[in-house]
Amino acid sequence: MLSAGQSMDSAVETKRTRADDTVRIERAVRALLARSSARAAVRGPAFARLWELASQHVLGGKLLRPRLLLGAFDALASDSADRIPCTECVLRLAAGIELLHFSFLLHDDVIDEDLLRRGRANLIGMLLEERGPGDVPAARNPARPGADLHWARANGILLGDLMLSAAHQTFARESLPEGVRLRLLELLEHAIAESVAGEQLDVGLSDGVIASDLGTVLEMSRRKTAVYTFELPLRAAAILAGQDQRTEREIAAIGTHLGVAFQLQDDLLSTFGRAAEHGKDPYSDLREAKETAIIAYARMTSAWSRIEPWFGRADLGEEEGRALRDVLVECGAERFIRSLIEDEIRTALDLVASPESAVPPELARFMLRLVDSLEERRS
Amino acid sequence: MLSAGQSMDSAVETKRTRADDTVRIERAVRALLARSSARAAVRGPAFARLWELASQHVLGGKLLRPRLLLGAFDALASDSADRIPCTECVLRLAAGIELLHFSFLLHDDVIDEDLLRRGRANLIGMLLEERGPGDVPAARNPARPGADLHWARANGILLGDLMLSAAHQTFARESLPEGVRLRLLELLEHAIAESVAGEQLDVGLSDGVIASDLGTVLEMSRRKTAVYTFELPLRAAAILAGQDQRTEREIAAIGTHLGVAFQLQDDLLSTFGRAAEHGKDPYSDLREAKETAIIAYARMTSAWSRIEPWFGRADLGEEEGRALRDVLVECGAERFIRSLIEDEIRTALDLVASPESAVPPELARFMLRLVDSLEERRS
Repeated sequence: MLSAGQSMDSAVETKRTRADDTVRIERAVRALLARSSARAAVRGPAFARLWELASQHVLGGKLLRPRLLLGAFDALASDSADRIPCTECVLRLAAGIELLHFSFLLHDDVIDEDLLRRGRANLIGMLLEERGPGDVPAARNPARPGADLHWARANGILLGDLMLSAAHQTFARESLPEGVRLRLLELLEHAIAESVAGEQLDVGLSDGVIASDLGTVLEMSRRKTAVYTFELPLRAAAILAGQDQRTEREIAAIGTHLGVAFQLQDDLLSTFGRAAEHGKDPYSDLREAKETAIIAYARMTSAWSRIEPWFGRADLGEEEGRALRDVLVECGAERFIRSLIEDEIRTALDLVASPESAVPPELARFMLRLVDSLEERRS
Repeated sequence: MLSAGQSMDSAVETKRTRADDTVRIERAVRALLARSSARAAVRGPAFARLWELASQHVLGGKLLRPRLLLGAFDALASDSADRIPCTECVLRLAAGIELLHFSFLLHDDVIDEDLLRRGRANLIGMLLEERGPGDVPAARNPARPGADLHWARANGILLGDLMLSAAHQTFARESLPEGVRLRLLELLEHAIAESVAGEQLDVGLSDGVIASDLGTVLEMSRRKTAVYTFELPLRAAAILAGQDQRTEREIAAIGTHLGVAFQLQDDLLSTFGRAAEHGKDPYSDLREAKETAIIAYARMTSAWSRIEPWFGRADLGEEEGRALRDVLVECGAERFIRSLIEDEIRTALDLVASPESAVPPELARFMLRLVDSLEERRS
């Protein structure tokens, strides 16, 4: 049986196999990092160690974003005489988006004070376990309590900065026609601004600085995840395939709806899915008081009084966690989120099928396969 | 009487006046921010507030880096037929370096847990004082102690990311010959890697993860400050003025020596200067256990046993602070740092005056004025 992530990913390939793309993308990501990590050693052992950790951690994920770019580019380019002829450029830009994703994860982990990612120690957790970078003696400063954690988190911020820079360098260095380069840079700027705005909303909601309601939580999901995960790679593919701005805008709109559906499914899987498949503690969202759409809906029901006392409790156990989940089902939150996901997918399909749509038929087919995989992922 | 900062800056102009350059640079910095802040409002009040704070805080400094770029460009371009003809481009890139500087300050303040900058509340301190972003009610999360500080620091990380992105966008968007663009991008990458490596060393030294010695502290100063403050604007000026790579490398070497001298003077001024002129609490470096070259020297002397008990004490008062300063003078640390500064300046002058030097005479004169202002700054 396919796991949720795999069924999602298997749909984004067209002619090539999933394994082919994995190899190509991983090679391209490594090549981008190698540019700098080769020079890292001359900047001292601690800096070299940071780059070493970067290459270990950058490739733990499912490569969804680069896969989307490559799949959409194949679908769009077959229809276009104006496509960028350099397939290596397309691959490098896809890898650059993975570096952007990595940079967001790094700063996210610092902000959320997380030590785990994908079920194992993240970069911060790893640095915390180490005795010292490279051959440097780890003579901790006794005057400064928490120095180890401070050091580890500072490294998370700094590596995030390096990865954000590397993503920009990838877009900026590519030898492309001026118009294409500027459209891509504009898109990158938009995706980063949206992601930052979404992350800020997310932090504001959990810190109680921004009042929670369903509309705000949905806006947060769209900005924080949908834009850079779906809109960015799909629009980049459109630009590289020589599509006009109207088609690019339509693809952006479809991508955003699918992206919101993807994020909502992720919330459902985190809370109601099987931990073994999702690779995440099923109660961590509840323990960390994560303001998901599920919670925002539950807040509007009379069941909230039964949820509130347990929501955000670090000591939430297996039994209370299961009871909380049952209340979330009972009050209709789970059902409501499923209906929201269906709405988003239906809207995306209507846009694809619309008689005014400028989406080329090959991309329409790619989008339909994407929707199928999203629907499989739900079950 | 000129303050240290002013005397430094007054030397980097050639034909134009200091006031002219201030106006031009500030206008260019504002124009870069305006590109994005105009669109910030549609991303919600908290995001719009962040951009508002950005435009308030970006312009508090002395604009040393953009001034260096403009001054060196003027000196070099008068000698060159291959200079970039677009003076607005040069100005925009100078402003882009100021955004890079701002992004470093923001992440630095998060890492150092500082709430003040240039004698007033920094962005984090400002957000901490506010009741809520824009019209959003500030209903703090009682379940999360320290939520206000967490919110403020997260905003510091996020705005730093936006500014780092904006700096890259400035370099990437400019319409320049391919070779010039690539040389500038390579330089930007180098300056960021060096600054991150320097910041990492700085954190490692204060957290006691990296053992302190004079060589390491000097390396930290060079990487963290000298490269992006001196080497980056001077080399960018060389590239834009159409100088070859040999001249660029020579200018880089001279810039780095001057940059180290600048940073060491900054350390001296922080510890021994008059607070009113430097705008900094004279004992804050000692209270925060900042691992400066002064301290690294003192550690090697027998006086260290008298310094150590007070070094890094948050409750260090006026009287103990003054006594500590006296010991630092007595043990020879101050005198030693002054001699290091003289060495760095002499090396820079030797490179300028060398018969093999490829530095054009106009730039040599600019460099000499720069050295004069560095020497004035010492007194």
